[in-house]
Amino acid sequence: MHTIRLAEERDREAILAISKDVAVFTKEEVDTVDELFDEYVHDREARDYVFAVACDEKQRLLGFVCYGPTALTDRTYDAYWLAVSKQAQGKGIGRALFVWMEEQLRAQGVRLIVLETSGTPEYATARHMYDVLGYTGRLAVKDFYRTGDDLLYYAKTLQ
Amino acid sequence: MHTIRLAEERDREAILAISKDVAVFTKEEVDTVDELFDEYVHDREARDYVFAVACDEKQRLLGFVCYGPTALTDRTYDAYWLAVSKQAQGKGIGRALFVWMEEQLRAQGVRLIVLETSGTPEYATARHMYDVLGYTGRLAVKDFYRTGDDLLYYAKTLQ
Repeated sequence: MHTIRLAEERDREAILAISKDVAVFTKEEVDTVDELFDEYVHDREARDYVFAVACDEKQRLLGFVCYGPTALTDRTYDAYWLAVSKQAQGKGIGRALFVWMEEQLRAQGVRLIVLETSGTPEYATARHMYDVLGYTGRLAVKDFYRTGDDLLYYAKTLQ
Repeated sequence: MHTIRLAEERDREAILAISKDVAVFTKEEVDTVDELFDEYVHDREARDYVFAVACDEKQRLLGFVCYGPTALTDRTYDAYWLAVSKQAQGKGIGRALFVWMEEQLRAQGVRLIVLETSGTPEYATARHMYDVLGYTGRLAVKDFYRTGDDLLYYAKTLQ
């Protein structure tokens, strides 16, 4: 059992702990999650970044998703970050977070969700989930992040 | 005849005038150029954004390019903005700005230059120039900016 809700300031430590725990994020990436969380909690009005979390029945954090409007577009949103703690992986938490996000965004009139991800084996499970959820994936730039680490773009039309 | 140099604070008005003059940038995009120029002139140390300009023999601005390091990558740079004033178009100014930028970045050990652009007819001349300069273009997201306006990614390996 899990519930999904918007993140609160008190979730910061658990969000950062999960970001480190998943082991695929670099230190620079974990720092970026922290910066975006700052923007989320200190400027909720702007809504440039939104964090939602999945919790178990004891209110322990299982995972989170971060998303926001894509600059210079008409109703396109970016799904920036998704992470599920190691012990909670394989239970559909990531998928539930994404479905929850999609429901929010569809209700807001968002037209398209896009996300950037890596082509490395570490991200194969995530890419599979995007496929299953109906996202169309394309190679955007070979060797984008570093040599041997491509940028892929996934997109799903909401309306 | 033209010369290319790093932009100075005094170039701001001409840069914004060209951004408006080219008529393909939305107001939101012109405002973004202004914000990035702020970051460039006020935080030259950080070098998140660099502006270079092309001038004629009377020091009138003909065009500009804006580029900077791509977050979370190994020596990848983004070419964010390129614009040439209407009366100076078709004279190789855009191409000269790009070649100048590439020389700077190659000397700094940059590995890859990437850029995002639109698939609309208004950007056909720009896309042709990227092709000629050896950039590889790929469709990244259909209908990304708005319905009928795709996101294309171009990339060129420097080393």
